[in-house]
Amino acid sequence: MLINCAAYREGHKVADLAPEELGAYLDQPDTFVWVALRDSDAAELESYRRLFNLHSLAVEDASHGHQRPKVEEYGDDLFVVMHLIDWVGGELQLGEVMVFVGRNHVLSVRKGSKLHFLGVRERCEREPELLRQGPSFVLYALMDAVVDRYFPIVDLLESELEEIEQSIFTSGAARDNIQRLYALKRRLMLLRRAVAPMLEMLSKLHGGRTPPICARSEDYFRDVADHLARIHGAIESVRETIGTAIQANLSMVAIEDSDVTKRLAAWAGIFAAATAFAGIWGMNFEGMPELKWQWGYPAALGLITTVCVGLWYRFKRAGWL
Amino acid sequence: MLINCAAYREGHKVADLAPEELGAYLDQPDTFVWVALRDSDAAELESYRRLFNLHSLAVEDASHGHQRPKVEEYGDDLFVVMHLIDWVGGELQLGEVMVFVGRNHVLSVRKGSKLHFLGVRERCEREPELLRQGPSFVLYALMDAVVDRYFPIVDLLESELEEIEQSIFTSGAARDNIQRLYALKRRLMLLRRAVAPMLEMLSKLHGGRTPPICARSEDYFRDVADHLARIHGAIESVRETIGTAIQANLSMVAIEDSDVTKRLAAWAGIFAAATAFAGIWGMNFEGMPELKWQWGYPAALGLITTVCVGLWYRFKRAGWL
Amino acid sequence: MLINCAAYREGHKVADLAPEELGAYLDQPDTFVWVALRDSDAAELESYRRLFNLHSLAVEDASHGHQRPKVEEYGDDLFVVMHLIDWVGGELQLGEVMVFVGRNHVLSVRKGSKLHFLGVRERCEREPELLRQGPSFVLYALMDAVVDRYFPIVDLLESELEEIEQSIFTSGAARDNIQRLYALKRRLMLLRRAVAPMLEMLSKLHGGRTPPICARSEDYFRDVADHLARIHGAIESVRETIGTAIQANLSMVAIEDSDVTKRLAAWAGIFAAATAFAGIWGMNFEGMPELKWQWGYPAALGLITTVCVGLWYRFKRAGWL
Amino acid sequence: MLINCAAYREGHKVADLAPEELGAYLDQPDTFVWVALRDSDAAELESYRRLFNLHSLAVEDASHGHQRPKVEEYGDDLFVVMHLIDWVGGELQLGEVMVFVGRNHVLSVRKGSKLHFLGVRERCEREPELLRQGPSFVLYALMDAVVDRYFPIVDLLESELEEIEQSIFTSGAARDNIQRLYALKRRLMLLRRAVAPMLEMLSKLHGGRTPPICARSEDYFRDVADHLARIHGAIESVRETIGTAIQANLSMVAIEDSDVTKRLAAWAGIFAAATAFAGIWGMNFEGMPELKWQWGYPAALGLITTVCVGLWYRFKRAGWL
Amino acid sequence: MLINCAAYREGHKVADLAPEELGAYLDQPDTFVWVALRDSDAAELESYRRLFNLHSLAVEDASHGHQRPKVEEYGDDLFVVMHLIDWVGGELQLGEVMVFVGRNHVLSVRKGSKLHFLGVRERCEREPELLRQGPSFVLYALMDAVVDRYFPIVDLLESELEEIEQSIFTSGAARDNIQRLYALKRRLMLLRRAVAPMLEMLSKLHGGRTPPICARSEDYFRDVADHLARIHGAIESVRETIGTAIQANLSMVAIEDSDVTKRLAAWAGIFAAATAFAGIWGMNFEGMPELKWQWGYPAALGLITTVCVGLWYRFKRAGWL
Repeated sequence: MLINCAAYREGHKVADLAPEELGAYLDQPDTFVWVALRDSDAAELESYRRLFNLHSLAVEDASHGHQRPKVEEYGDDLFVVMHLIDWVGGELQLGEVMVFVGRNHVLSVRKGSKLHFLGVRERCEREPELLRQGPSFVLYALMDAVVDRYFPIVDLLESELEEIEQSIFTSGAARDNIQRLYALKRRLMLLRRAVAPMLEMLSKLHGGRTPPICARSEDYFRDVADHLARIHGAIESVRETIGTAIQANLSMVAIEDSDVTKRLAAWAGIFAAATAFAGIWGMNFEGMPELKWQWGYPAALGLITTVCVGLWYRFKRAGWL
Repeated sequence: MLINCAAYREGHKVADLAPEELGAYLDQPDTFVWVALRDSDAAELESYRRLFNLHSLAVEDASHGHQRPKVEEYGDDLFVVMHLIDWVGGELQLGEVMVFVGRNHVLSVRKGSKLHFLGVRERCEREPELLRQGPSFVLYALMDAVVDRYFPIVDLLESELEEIEQSIFTSGAARDNIQRLYALKRRLMLLRRAVAPMLEMLSKLHGGRTPPICARSEDYFRDVADHLARIHGAIESVRETIGTAIQANLSMVAIEDSDVTKRLAAWAGIFAAATAFAGIWGMNFEGMPELKWQWGYPAALGLITTVCVGLWYRFKRAGWL
Repeated sequence: MLINCAAYREGHKVADLAPEELGAYLDQPDTFVWVALRDSDAAELESYRRLFNLHSLAVEDASHGHQRPKVEEYGDDLFVVMHLIDWVGGELQLGEVMVFVGRNHVLSVRKGSKLHFLGVRERCEREPELLRQGPSFVLYALMDAVVDRYFPIVDLLESELEEIEQSIFTSGAARDNIQRLYALKRRLMLLRRAVAPMLEMLSKLHGGRTPPICARSEDYFRDVADHLARIHGAIESVRETIGTAIQANLSMVAIEDSDVTKRLAAWAGIFAAATAFAGIWGMNFEGMPELKWQWGYPAALGLITTVCVGLWYRFKRAGWL
Repeated sequence: MLINCAAYREGHKVADLAPEELGAYLDQPDTFVWVALRDSDAAELESYRRLFNLHSLAVEDASHGHQRPKVEEYGDDLFVVMHLIDWVGGELQLGEVMVFVGRNHVLSVRKGSKLHFLGVRERCEREPELLRQGPSFVLYALMDAVVDRYFPIVDLLESELEEIEQSIFTSGAARDNIQRLYALKRRLMLLRRAVAPMLEMLSKLHGGRTPPICARSEDYFRDVADHLARIHGAIESVRETIGTAIQANLSMVAIEDSDVTKRLAAWAGIFAAATAFAGIWGMNFEGMPELKWQWGYPAALGLITTVCVGLWYRFKRAGWL
Repeated sequence: MLINCAAYREGHKVADLAPEELGAYLDQPDTFVWVALRDSDAAELESYRRLFNLHSLAVEDASHGHQRPKVEEYGDDLFVVMHLIDWVGGELQLGEVMVFVGRNHVLSVRKGSKLHFLGVRERCEREPELLRQGPSFVLYALMDAVVDRYFPIVDLLESELEEIEQSIFTSGAARDNIQRLYALKRRLMLLRRAVAPMLEMLSKLHGGRTPPICARSEDYFRDVADHLARIHGAIESVRETIGTAIQANLSMVAIEDSDVTKRLAAWAGIFAAATAFAGIWGMNFEGMPELKWQWGYPAALGLITTVCVGLWYRFKRAGWL
């Protein structure tokens, strides 16, 4: 489905276009068209394939979707795939945006995500001196927007982790913690599978051997790469911390279990002592003189109490109670 | 055993051939023959070795089988080994396909797998403009088919993992989970040993220094490489998640064990208290006035009940019960 | 906010300047100005951007802050970001210093940290033969100061680790240890995220392809890189040791728990034996001749004592008590 | 000690030689001598050092032994060290073979292993068209023989692992499993220290910059490298599986322990209930009317039985028994 | 403090010198001086800095000490830092040796270690044909001596590990083992921090781009590198084994704990059964006919014994006892 479509010359918008008017602008000097699509079907993509002379492998990938982030050169043209990650209803939702970049066109196709790029077009149109760099600047602007949207996701995961950390040393929260850490790890992996290949792909767009079409915007791609590297660093850090947190959590469970065992041992000991004494004086032997003493019973109670309190005190001091 | 055999000129099939007719086509310009074998013995391979002038080290490898995925250049020819992975009777089954590619021939040998490549030949014949690229396109088409068959295996392993995940925080499922996670890991390793070396081998077929025979199909090999990279990413992700799941499972066992210990401690405490009191009033001392009180027995029962209920309430509140 | 600002010619200070006097010195030969700012707002940065002709992407990064350590070349100019780490009130505090280096200027902007660099300026002014190298030497001096301030932080973390280690095999300290190890790991990660990217960035400033502006100070950057590599080695070592310490701690908890279980088992066995014997002689059968023997009771007590002491001795010998 | 010694010209054996006849053949065109030694002492090596003009560092290494697998170039000559691994009396035994390769000589020295290479010489002599490649083919043939002997060792370790796996989820086998896994890991590490450096060393003998003496046999070295890569892959796979198996084993111990604790808790609860009731009716209060009822005793027994069976049933249903 | 000091020409010692005589030999052709210092203060180093024209950054590092192993080129000169590791009183002791190498001088400074290098000078003087290589051979000889001293340390750590391994599956040794493994890991890390950077530094002294001063001794540096690689391999192997040993140890603790729990459960069950029966016949009901039977008591004792023995046998068979 078409979102919008316009032609730009030397950084300024020339006209909003209908799809059938596109052809007229493709051969004008210093001019390019920028088309934004959404959830396109094969037929729509096919029509643009013919128009912009796109490589069929790239169009096939765009049509199937579920690609990993990548940049591919087909001759002088580029085909770029990026992941869109959105926070919908308490869960991360994965979408894609695919961008075809050529000398005279930019075609972006968004799939399975509600995140839109209207702001990107506006920003580009407000900065004609930069947009003059041509299609590569549009690509940069789209990438920048995609990466900018990763930041709140990372922040969210980081603050989720911090929240878990606060209850990691709280007794009784272990089951909850492990469940939340596991879920957090899953989300982190999703984000990481968006970020890591994109970082690799960006390294092809600046420094070393850059595709000619990107040459004028190299500094800008490096800037995006740098922001992404920051996100990647944060992800790796969260990932390692989750690992440590799971270990710490397991340790806490073991420690608590050990504490409970100690208490159990202590109270079992105290009651077992009382019961053993009571059992002895409950025997039916005839020659048990203490049973007949006047103060026998109180003395027995006293002895039992003394033993119990003694044990209790000893366990208390040993930190078992 | 011969599956089929045909000669192609400029992308179009010229003729289906019997093995003994092959020689006639080998020196015709722009022509190549494509032979598909299955579970060949040494004698059959030897005959093709002489026909296509294959390197004896490559033929030896093909004859022995149990190779790792690899691509080897012998002069201008290529020898490629790929793993075929099939899901047979609830278990992964490993086979191999070995492909000899030369200027005028493609020879594929399938071993130990029921997966066949008839569809590949059909697809190639339907796209003569691509098949015109020559033997390298056939190689691409075979690779693409092999890789396409990895996707359902990955999906299977991923959904197996998701199924396990759903019972990971269910109490009582730990033994089952650990067993299934272990089996899943084993399967994943099998797949990984097919995918990782193949990814490495594909990096030799596009970009950088490509064998001359593959030059015209570079974009296609890159596309396969990209699909494979996606599979590899998924494998790594599953692998890391299995690791975390095993840890989470161990934590859950520890937490449950701790819960049981608490319950045990609680009930043991309650009963021990009751028994201790009963034991005391079961002693045979003479001077135990309460034994003679009219309401002694009910009072004792009441006291015991009170103590037990008190303990029960306290344990309940502490979350031990 | 301006901290200070001066012009240098051939290694000697020419004059302390007010911001508006800066322009006059920018085109003089062998002369550069060195401006130090602190917590600057966008307006202040913008004025220097125009003055020194800085790249707007760099200025934007400087204005936003929260960058990762990096060095970026914009034409002949450099933009460098470093992390400042300070120990404030028992916690690590993260700040930043951003440095713009050009042929005729050094502009440093400090953000969110109380660590200052007055000593750096003094040191530079005391060594005019070195300062003659120009702006790159100032960059080196700032880097050296930043890295020097990492050393006490590493020492602190190392001695924290050693302190924890001393109580790792002490019984009863497990909960505390795991909490401290976790906190230490977090701090270490913070430091590592400052050091690792800086190490990578320094590798661009010596050896191989160095930015022309740094060529005269290469040996110095290598020296800083070397100091940083030492810190990095220490961090990795602490990190690995924390991992081992967490495992050792978990083992200790398990061992202690096992010891407690043994004791519990031992005492439970001893008391249960006593209670069982007492219970038997507490039965109300009529034909229990031993109940009537003269020495029955002492003999029973003796037997019970013997059994208990026997068990106790046996458990003692087995190391359970 | 000399094993055997012969001269070869253009792939064919010219003569079996005594050591003192060697010199005569060293300067003949297209001729090389192949000497095999075993457990040589320094004096013997020294005589060959003078004869073949070997580098003293290489001879020193050969004389000391206990080297890691490596290949070193000394001018045009090569010095190669490989590990021999043999299965002797239920344990892996490590030996070495060192090979000096020059334009006109191959000198192999075997140390501390009973594995011999007579078959290698025979095979070479049967294939004169290959042996014509010269000393490098002999080196290949020796390497191939060494690597071929790793395969049964890997198979052995893999089947050992599979055997352990079959009892990993069997209760009661944990102690045995962990001991066997540990021993297996040790053996694996031994093999890995033979294989990993050899793989690295082989990468110097094919592709890229190859020593001139090996140029004609490059394809063959690549083939050995490939076989070794397969072994290495298998080792890494076993290694990772051992890690997972140890974790799974630990989980199984924890699960079993938890099961035992549950049973203990269940039976303790049942008996404690019975004892508590019995204790209550064993009290000596006077006003306990139920003691005098005609059906008091059977009713009490019935109640106790009912409670016990009720608990038993409940525990059964909860999976504790 | 000066240890010794001599001048060498063409591999032969010319004269033992006093420090003030050094200057005279610095400009003679094919001559170099070799000065050995120990625990030098800044003043002593400063005098040599002027004499040999050393770079002040290198001298500063040498004066501060606590460097990581490294090699730095300053123009044509080299500055090398190595760690000396000694076994003093049951603990590893870390020292340093720093070597300045120039066309006409070798200056070694030893710090904080009692290990000396007198043997190195003797060995060099015994081999004038090698010492003719000049200062680089002295550097080699020093490195070789440093590395040779790592071997006994590695052997020591390896035999320590083997000793621990022998008690890893012994019950009751877990606490000791974990403590020893932890200490071993710490020592290993110390050695590793000496070896790993030195290995990296040695890779700069042979193969690829070698400093001109080392060109004649390349083969020798490669030989040291190889020895060091062997040590590094051993360290990595010990390190991985320690990790596995800690896991195995934890498993053993868990297994033992489980065994104890089983025993506890078994004996508790046996005694609880006896107590429950005794409790029942200890009840004070009137209508308990078995109490009055002639053989009631022996029958009761028999029943209790039978039950207990039956349970004991069952537990025995289940492996709990």
